[in-house]
Amino acid sequence: MAIIDWSLSIDRAIPKPFRTLLRGVGQIFFCCNAVTGLIFLVALYIGGVTAGLAATAGVLSSTIAAHLLGFPEKDIDAGLYGFNGTLVGPCLFLFLENSPQLWLYVVLASILSTIVLAALMRILQPYDIPASTAPFVLTSWLFMAAVFAFDSFSRGSLLPIAGIPVEAANISMIPAEIGYMAATKGISEVMFADSVIVGILFLIGIAIHSLWGAAMALSGTIVGIVIPVLLGVDKNLIEMGLYAFNPVLAMMAVGWAFLKPSGRSMGLAFLAGIFTVICQAGLTGFLTPLGLPALTFPFVLVMWVFLLAADKSKYQNYGGRNCEAIMDSKTLNENNKLET
Amino acid sequence: MAIIDWSLSIDRAIPKPFRTLLRGVGQIFFCCNAVTGLIFLVALYIGGVTAGLAATAGVLSSTIAAHLLGFPEKDIDAGLYGFNGTLVGPCLFLFLENSPQLWLYVVLASILSTIVLAALMRILQPYDIPASTAPFVLTSWLFMAAVFAFDSFSRGSLLPIAGIPVEAANISMIPAEIGYMAATKGISEVMFADSVIVGILFLIGIAIHSLWGAAMALSGTIVGIVIPVLLGVDKNLIEMGLYAFNPVLAMMAVGWAFLKPSGRSMGLAFLAGIFTVICQAGLTGFLTPLGLPALTFPFVLVMWVFLLAADKSKYQNYGGRNCEAIMDSKTLNENNKLET
Amino acid sequence: MAIIDWSLSIDRAIPKPFRTLLRGVGQIFFCCNAVTGLIFLVALYIGGVTAGLAATAGVLSSTIAAHLLGFPEKDIDAGLYGFNGTLVGPCLFLFLENSPQLWLYVVLASILSTIVLAALMRILQPYDIPASTAPFVLTSWLFMAAVFAFDSFSRGSLLPIAGIPVEAANISMIPAEIGYMAATKGISEVMFADSVIVGILFLIGIAIHSLWGAAMALSGTIVGIVIPVLLGVDKNLIEMGLYAFNPVLAMMAVGWAFLKPSGRSMGLAFLAGIFTVICQAGLTGFLTPLGLPALTFPFVLVMWVFLLAADKSKYQNYGGRNCEAIMDSKTLNENNKLET
Repeated sequence: MAIIDWSLSIDRAIPKPFRTLLRGVGQIFFCCNAVTGLIFLVALYIGGVTAGLAATAGVLSSTIAAHLLGFPEKDIDAGLYGFNGTLVGPCLFLFLENSPQLWLYVVLASILSTIVLAALMRILQPYDIPASTAPFVLTSWLFMAAVFAFDSFSRGSLLPIAGIPVEAANISMIPAEIGYMAATKGISEVMFADSVIVGILFLIGIAIHSLWGAAMALSGTIVGIVIPVLLGVDKNLIEMGLYAFNPVLAMMAVGWAFLKPSGRSMGLAFLAGIFTVICQAGLTGFLTPLGLPALTFPFVLVMWVFLLAADKSKYQNYGGRNCEAIMDSKTLNENNKLET
Repeated sequence: MAIIDWSLSIDRAIPKPFRTLLRGVGQIFFCCNAVTGLIFLVALYIGGVTAGLAATAGVLSSTIAAHLLGFPEKDIDAGLYGFNGTLVGPCLFLFLENSPQLWLYVVLASILSTIVLAALMRILQPYDIPASTAPFVLTSWLFMAAVFAFDSFSRGSLLPIAGIPVEAANISMIPAEIGYMAATKGISEVMFADSVIVGILFLIGIAIHSLWGAAMALSGTIVGIVIPVLLGVDKNLIEMGLYAFNPVLAMMAVGWAFLKPSGRSMGLAFLAGIFTVICQAGLTGFLTPLGLPALTFPFVLVMWVFLLAADKSKYQNYGGRNCEAIMDSKTLNENNKLET
Repeated sequence: MAIIDWSLSIDRAIPKPFRTLLRGVGQIFFCCNAVTGLIFLVALYIGGVTAGLAATAGVLSSTIAAHLLGFPEKDIDAGLYGFNGTLVGPCLFLFLENSPQLWLYVVLASILSTIVLAALMRILQPYDIPASTAPFVLTSWLFMAAVFAFDSFSRGSLLPIAGIPVEAANISMIPAEIGYMAATKGISEVMFADSVIVGILFLIGIAIHSLWGAAMALSGTIVGIVIPVLLGVDKNLIEMGLYAFNPVLAMMAVGWAFLKPSGRSMGLAFLAGIFTVICQAGLTGFLTPLGLPALTFPFVLVMWVFLLAADKSKYQNYGGRNCEAIMDSKTLNENNKLET
């Protein structure tokens, strides 16, 4: 694919420190590609300047921390120590009250996300599955829950109010016309941006890196609209794309990034997308008494379960393919050629 | 033992698909024996036709899913991919409002229980301990918690109301005459059937496979009545056998299925039974804010802790004996001869 | 160091059963030293006779249980099967209503802590990290949560009331003069003693074993006062030293007990101390709906994350140094010579 070759040539031409940081942003959607990362970052700033700055602070803090703590250069270069920080920054700014101290809090959380990533990589080593965005989720939960105890911070109005789970009120069906909006918003919600344009930019960024990846992302948004509608989830949540970002990530992970693309793995990806919707609904129930959002944990859980289970399957379509590929953009390039 | 030889001969004579499914039902109480499974299934239908049908739908969905996903034939044959589905079905019908969609929900949950089992087997592989009913518990919790978010389903009246844990009201002592009823009900409660006859049928099913296993099951019900009474648990819960089914499973697992039967492992089994009662009380407290029942998780936790700890003991009475035995009914047969 | 040589000579001269029990007490602060353990035990009795007796019952029950269950002699001798029991005893007496049955409850909990320790050691074996006080925390949580269901026990007035987390009320700054008191209390709070004298005795006990360890303990109390003040935590909690005992343990573990002491590991220790404060605030939020205290779990989590992450670092300052050292007081002796 010409575009992919071209974007990877640019990737390699960018000076190393910038390339590492931009790849960190690109890795949010499993793209070890600085051009993709740059498009994501632009999209983030379009979504909101504070979110863009927070993401920048996050990717800088977490990547620099990884260097100082002596974690493997190969992983840092591939941007693996960047994307959790990139997510932690806008997340804390979305859910906590904006204040000057919050910048320090974001830097601390990004550093911790790097340490948690290294620890999770060590734990998951014998199982050969990726830690993915788990460090972002665990760190953000911790920092959001801690705010209950601290006087210097306030919980923002978007954070769910802690309470006891109650049954959903009865809700009418979602009108078909808002489907398109929800679909593109679902992709942008991965980065907490509630905007159609941001979603389209993200999709372009993924498509430049891999058409197959973009196809899985689009399928994820569709699963993330159709299944919640069938199950009767609150219409507003679906419209905002809040039920789509987890299936987007789950289908990209199972259908493209970590299993060998095939008819069978596409079937698995759809199954993973459906279970991710149920997992998100269930996890939201678990977290209600704590007043915390599910973030991307439904995706992380479903991905772990599917990759671990794939390892027991005789169809063995899990070989950590992209795990290596993520490390080596040259291999990635070749894999993409095969795929597209 | 003539009965065991005889039941295993029948087991081997049954056509493979039926044998696999019936063994799946039998594995609920660690019995890789289709005759035992058939008795259990009959007991289930006696307990309630809906429960029987739900168990049938569950064992079918989970076993077929295991085939389609390519999990190891040896495990499928032994019924290991059947018992979690068998439990998921009646569980969802007990705790959620009966509706036509619920059948689809049960099928989805049974498929997920199969994938979770494969993932857990992969995780537990280095430790050589069984996943047991953990996939059933995790999947059921997820699907029950998800219902809070869905409009198409309702939580049934038996599901605990989510709340903040409060101290037990003061309760008078349990009269001795209801002990017998509670004992047999405890065994039936593993399959959510609140009936003495069902409990006796379960016990017969186990005894056909192993007298030692049946003795441990009976001991478990006694521990599950005496210990809660001593600790002052709500009389009604004890009478319904709700505190007995976890010790039944724990004592069967530690005293018969997974450790070499001996005086020492019998002592361990009683200790496991006692801790299971405390674990059930504690876990119920943890789950109160989520409005979820403890199911068989107290047993799973205590069994894992005891089998892991046994591995550090110089008395080394853990050798994964029955893990292999479960795979091979011939070996099982021989072991049972030694035991009984 | 003359004092250390001297205290270890006494350690070796004490008859084995007593040495094992006293080392168990000493291991609370990572000190495999019976003299240190004796000073800790005296401090405990000064803090309160019931607490001292409960600690004695705990260390006896858990160590004897380890013998009877056949766990490795080398670990038992080093006191590793003693310190969790030592902590369980006073913890249950602090948080539950004092009653004659409570002694039986303490003995049961101490036995369970021994089994949980063996299980955790088996789980953590591939990762080569210590279980530390995790068995104490898990067992105590279980036994405290179980009390909700039991009629024979009552929750004491110190146990938090189960509720939904709410934001901290606004709190004025902590006056500087109470800093000293909080610092020494922080160390004593590890053993649930709210007293300056007990704290100083603990510090002396640690200093006899290792000056470096004592320096880290003191640094931990300072981090546990300064950071919560900066973040605006409730003044009373800080004053009582409740925010200091976790950083004390975290800084001792990361800066002395398990990583090779160096400038870099001292930096890591301070980072660990800071994250422990945030982790304690966050975990307290997570536990609010359950009505349970965080105990030493913030320390356990941060220590696990830091030791696992250290294993991925090229500076490789984790080599399980003290893990071995803990087993062998002679090696410890030599290491202490190098350090101090």
